This record gives sequence, C-alpha cells and structure tokens, in this order.
Amino acid sequence: MANVKPRILKGFRDYLPDNMLPKQRMLDTVARTFESFGFAPLVTPALEYADILVGKYGDEGDKLLYRFLDNGDRDVALRYDLTVPLARVIGMNPQLAKPFKRYQIAPVWRAEKPGRGRFREFVQCDVDIVGSDDLMADAECLAVGAAVLRALGVDDFVLRVNNRKLLTALLARLGIAEGKPAMAVLRSVDKLPKIGEAAVRALLVSENGLGSAAVDGIFDFLKLDPAELASWFADSEVGLQGAAELNALLGLATELGVRDRVEVDLSIARGLDYYTGTIYETFLTAAESLGSVMSGGRYDDLLGMFGGQSTPAVGISLGVDRLFAGLLELGLVQEDGNPTRVLVTVFDASTRAASYAIAADLRAAGVPCEVYLGAPRMKKQFQYADRRGVAHVIIAGPDEVARGEVTIKRLATGEQLTVARDAVASHLR
Amino acid sequence: MANVKPRILKGFRDYLPDNMLPKQRMLDTVARTFESFGFAPLVTPALEYADILVGKYGDEGDKLLYRFLDNGDRDVALRYDLTVPLARVIGMNPQLAKPFKRYQIAPVWRAEKPGRGRFREFVQCDVDIVGSDDLMADAECLAVGAAVLRALGVDDFVLRVNNRKLLTALLARLGIAEGKPAMAVLRSVDKLPKIGEAAVRALLVSENGLGSAAVDGIFDFLKLDPAELASWFADSEVGLQGAAELNALLGLATELGVRDRVEVDLSIARGLDYYTGTIYETFLTAAESLGSVMSGGRYDDLLGMFGGQSTPAVGISLGVDRLFAGLLELGLVQEDGNPTRVLVTVFDASTRAASYAIAADLRAAGVPCEVYLGAPRMKKQFQYADRRGVAHVIIAGPDEVARGEVTIKRLATGEQLTVARDAVASHLR
Repeated sequence: MANVKPRILKGFRDYLPDNMLPKQRMLDTVARTFESFGFAPLVTPALEYADILVGKYGDEGDKLLYRFLDNGDRDVALRYDLTVPLARVIGMNPQLAKPFKRYQIAPVWRAEKPGRGRFREFVQCDVDIVGSDDLMADAECLAVGAAVLRALGVDDFVLRVNNRKLLTALLARLGIAEGKPAMAVLRSVDKLPKIGEAAVRALLVSENGLGSAAVDGIFDFLKLDPAELASWFADSEVGLQGAAELNALLGLATELGVRDRVEVDLSIARGLDYYTGTIYETFLTAAESLGSVMSGGRYDDLLGMFGGQSTPAVGISLGVDRLFAGLLELGLVQEDGNPTRVLVTVFDASTRAASYAIAADLRAAGVPCEVYLGAPRMKKQFQYADRRGVAHVIIAGPDEVARGEVTIKRLATGEQLTVARDAVASHLR
Repeated sequence: MANVKPRILKGFRDYLPDNMLPKQRMLDTVARTFESFGFAPLVTPALEYADILVGKYGDEGDKLLYRFLDNGDRDVALRYDLTVPLARVIGMNPQLAKPFKRYQIAPVWRAEKPGRGRFREFVQCDVDIVGSDDLMADAECLAVGAAVLRALGVDDFVLRVNNRKLLTALLARLGIAEGKPAMAVLRSVDKLPKIGEAAVRALLVSENGLGSAAVDGIFDFLKLDPAELASWFADSEVGLQGAAELNALLGLATELGVRDRVEVDLSIARGLDYYTGTIYETFLTAAESLGSVMSGGRYDDLLGMFGGQSTPAVGISLGVDRLFAGLLELGLVQEDGNPTRVLVTVFDASTRAASYAIAADLRAAGVPCEVYLGAPRMKKQFQYADRRGVAHVIIAGPDEVARGEVTIKRLATGEQLTVARDAVASHLR
C-alpha cells in the first residue's frame, strides 16, 4: 500500500465526538419531538438519476450538483436537498395515506465555493405535511417548531410569518413582471434585516430598476398591520386570500398557545420560488445575528413535478449547524465527546470481575460508565479519567471487594466515599 | 420543467416510514447501548479523495468504488466502508486521546451487482476501540455485542469466537503460502456452516490444490477443544500466542458474565485479510439461517496505513438490515410507520382550541399524538385513524368541552370511556 498522506476534501468535515455527541443528542430530541406530533422518518438514497434533480434548483443549482456517470454509465447525482427526493417518493408511492407526515435528517451535497460556515456537505433536517391544504397543517408546523425549540431548552425565540400571496399581489399591483424580475425584487427585500431600509431602497432602484413610486409602495406595504391587509388588497383576489390566510394562521397560533412567539413580518420573502402561501423564519432572540434557524412554508405546486396529481404540502427545515451554534452560544449545550461520567477502575486481575460487575449494575441502573482497559497503577487510571472529563471514578480494590464495598472518588475535589456495593448506582444517579 | 418519470436507481431503496420507524428505534437502542459503554459518535464525509480509499479493499473492491472527477477535477470516491475513514481520522488527529472509543452508523456505497438482499447503498454500524492492545478491549466488544442484543429483546444468541493467529499457525504448518493462497483456503473453510464438511473438503482439493494430508490437518484442527490448542501448537510461537489469547478471552467472558453466550468456533475465518487476533461472528439462535448479525475482530496493523505509528484496534460491525430482519422474524419488532397511537379529533372550529390543548397535555405527559388536520364528520376522522393504525381516538365535542370532559374511544372494540379532561393522559399511558 502506497503511503498516502491522510487528508480531507475542501468543504468537507469530520465531526469528532466532542462536537458530534451533543449534536446527535440535539438531533435525537428534534426527532422525538417530530414523532410526538405524528411525523415518521423517511430515508432516501444519496444518489438519484440526474434527471430527477436537474432543472429543479435553477441554473445555479444545476451547476452545484455532484453529477457523474456511474460504473454502468448511468447519469447520476448526489441529492441537493430533501424536497425533490420527497417529491419522487410521493410520485412513486401513490398508496401512501395522506396527509403523509414525514421527517428526514440527512446530508446533502452542493459543490459551492467553501466559505465561513458554508460546506459542500451538510445535514438537512426537514419536516413536512404532504396532502393537506388545511391551514391547520401550516399552524402545526409553527407548533412543532416551537415544541422543538422548547424541548432543546430555548424559550426566547420568534417565529416570523408571512404569506407569499401578499407579495404576489403587491408585485402585481406595482407592475413588476412575474418570474425572474419578481424573484429578484423579493431577494432584494429579503436583505432588509441584514442591510437596512436605505440600502434596500437603493438596491431596488439600482438592481431591480424600480421607480420611486414602486419603492415607496413596497415600504408602505411592509409597514402594514395584519388587520389592514384586507382593505389594502380590497381589489386583489390573491391579496385578499393571502390576508385571510395570514390572519387565520394567527388565530390558529392563538389556539395552539404559540401566538406570543409568532410575529408577522411582511418582508420575509424566502429565497426559493416554490412557496405558494405561508412562509416562516425563526430566530433565537438572544442570538438573532445567527440568522433564521428554522424556515419553510407552503408549497402546493412543487410535489406534482413528477406528473402525479398536484399535492399540497407545507413544511419547515431546521438549520442543524446554525441551531447547534445557537445552543452553544446560549450555553444550552457544550462540546463534550464522552458519553459517560463514571470510570470504573481495575485494581488487578483478581478484582477485574468485580469491576465488570459494578459496571454492569451501573449500566442496568441507567448510569453509562466505562471500565478501564487494563490494570496499571491507579494514578494512571485517574489521569485517563481526568483527560476524559470523567466526574467520578469507582475503586474496587481487594479490601473493598472483601468487605462488599466500593469507593467513589470525586475527581474535581478528591473527596472519597465508601459505600455498600449495591448502593453505588443510587449514589451516582 | 420537463415531465420526468419518477424512478430510483437499481440497487438503491427508499425506506418508507413503516420500515424506517422501527429500524430507527433499533438503531437508537444500539447507539444508546454503545454510549453506555463509553463509545461516542464520529461522523465522516461521504466523499473522500480517491487515493485515500483505492488499494485498501483489494482489486475487486477498487472496481466497486463510486469514483469520479468532481467539478474541480479532483479524483473523489464515495466511502466503501467506515474503517478506512476511521484510519484517516486517526492519522489526521494525533491529539485524540487513546483508547479512542467511537461508533459510526452511516451508509456506504459499493457498485456491486444488485441481488437478493444485496444493495449498492447500505448502512454500516461499527463500534471500535482504537489504541488499546489489551485483551480487555476484545472482551468489551463481546460484552457490548451481548448488551446490544439484550437491549433489543434478543436473549438467545451465540457469539462465536476464534483467533486469527491460530489459523496463521495452522496454514504455516501445512505449508500453505501466506497471502492469496492462505486467504483462498480461509475463504473455503469459511463456507463450512453453509455447505458442510464434505463440500469444503472437495473445495480444498479442487480450488485450493491441497493434498489429503493437509485437508485432514485442517479438519483435525477444527475439531480441537480450546484446552488442547496449546499442546497442538507447542512448536509454533504464533500458534501458542493465539491459544493463549483465545483462552484468556474465554476467561474474560466468564468475568463479564457472557461466557454462556460465547462459543469457540475454529472454522471462523472472516473474509477480510486485515484481522490479526480475535475474530467474532454472532448468530441469533432462533434465526441462525440469517447468518452472522454482528462480526469483527482485532486488526492491529490496519490503522497505521496513513503513515502514523501502528495503532492497535478491535471492533465489531453490526449488520443493520440483517439484524432488523432477525428482529422481524422473531416478532420483536413489527413494520409500523405511525409513531403515535392516539388521534385527537376536531369536532368543529369552536372546539379546535380544546383539541389542541388536549394534544399538548398528552405530549407533555409523554404520549405522542396527532391532531386531525381539519374538522370533517367524525366518521371520516375515525376512518383516518383506522388506516393509520391508531388505537385510541379522543373526542372533545361541545358537550364534553362544556363539562370539562373528554371521551376516549378504543377503535378495535368501539368501547368508549368519558373521563375528566385532566385525567386523559393517565388513562392512555
């Protein structure tokens, strides 16, 4: 075997245990919360036929696909997101009962220029309700988003909502053509929280070619109260529909007990052009600069892309790395790669079986623990425990074993406590 | 968007919720068990530089790599297993404290000819102890394997163990050259449980070109009792070492309380040529025809492949799909894609908030539940519950709400029970 230098592709990362253990626990909590609302896991392959993916993400997206010919000369690509594979599954499985409530937590691949916080492989975490056009489904996404954050210990957050139909009506009124020009205007508006009103006004003129009346119209709209929307859009069917949906969603948020965490923000446009109704973003109040940690909306036209009947859908996508960064910043998690807080030492071969038995009892009592692999001097075992961030070491030397006792040593203070052999689990719990 | 027929690549699968929900729960139990012994999760990228992987799996393996040039003309490949990426991580991170105990549960890709139970993407589940040459590490793998199976509800299983050094000594004594000829003989011996002694004897003559004395020597060896090994190998240093290790491992298995589940099987050779000591396979007694559900061993020379110092390691790999098939066969899990057993119905818009509140209380009490999305006639909601395999529906109509009560209906029998609003969770738990 040639001696190859070990290295990793640019834009890719290893997640070592220090980072991955708390992140995995976060994802487990997220999944359990999704399941408590009736969402179930779906897994799809990393590789798809290229024509399943191509043309779904715009010209830019197509260029970012990891696309190649496989050993059988099939034109294949790594998945770019979890939504198009979901659409494929829906298209291939008409037998699935609707509403189909699924979540998927899996990596996606995009050949982007790597940069600060931008990677070529990253985990997406999507939860979607497929096959219901009821606004209760939109509201359930708010509720499950709030439940996820609360389950992770975050209480200060805001779910910002808007409705895409309002933006459609606004742009139509201002005479901005649908499609690319409209999308470009929405992208400019979307920058409002980052660059402020003056800069967005300038962009709308310089980049989007709007006149000052249109720019004023946009900012008049952005300052509306939800209750004013219906009269503002009195002449627009789609505008009235958007206003009715947004106000109904706020009513449902009240019924769901999350109204105090929901704010209307008419500037939210979302980058993707497939949203058709409700759109959401979510910010941690104490770490707002991270940006939205959870976004999504209703996309009633997308899942029909594979020729089946049109299938309404609504969902949210959690920014795994961003949310984890937020939890770290808020002190709600910390990097730590050791799942145990207890090391059972091994005095010598004669007491090893006793150490194994103590460890088995601890695990049976729900206390994860490690047994030292070997039996060197105690000092060396304590050093190992210290390096692993272990809080307590268990000592069962020949004297302790003979007396049916165990010594628990707290590493931080050096305190020792000798207890009866069968009381050790309750002492540590 | 062109109208593309939705389809999936041959050799790849979607895991729909019916299958994925119980499988995910199995994997969660596996991960929690690993953690209870101090193993922590590691995640590595799907893509690696091709030269990291090429040459590690033999000529056959190299041909099965999904290898391509990425958009930057880098020669890359999808990972083929989790062991070589582990070796890369060890090579790149000398700061990691040893023993490094990690697990990884992740898909791997091999462009094999798809067949019954053989896929081009499948999940591997590996647990390894890196940096300890102590036999306690080998024994810990037995213990964690037994603990995993017990945590999954399997009590009848057998951990078959052998030691690669014994096979090395045997082949040397019979004058079979190391490398490919020795590996070919081991592969023939490995077929013993599948094709029986007579067929293996025939293979050893026809395929491996052995004389009848050598064939007899192999079968004399296979019938030895572990206690006889030392005298049989009295003239072989490596044979004596293998005998000592195997007998010491059996002693540790006794101390660990798993000796009754451990059997010596001198015919176990394992296909891979990188094992250097202990080797394991694991069979479910009541579903033995599935083959080994968990295999592995000690591989002390492999992790140094990236030029670092030699790093001893021992581990086991769980056959996720095979083990899941075993659990299904034993009736320990069943296919079921609904994480909830309770549907909270919605009588009409006036009682919707009450239904939401009941659902929130149930979830807070640890009872997953779904709220019907909409408020059609009860009959339709019951039909949905039935199709979803829900056991209980909750009814909170205007009368119930006015009286502070809730009706629990058991779908299978039609039984109904009306209880106080705040007693509903305790009734369902």
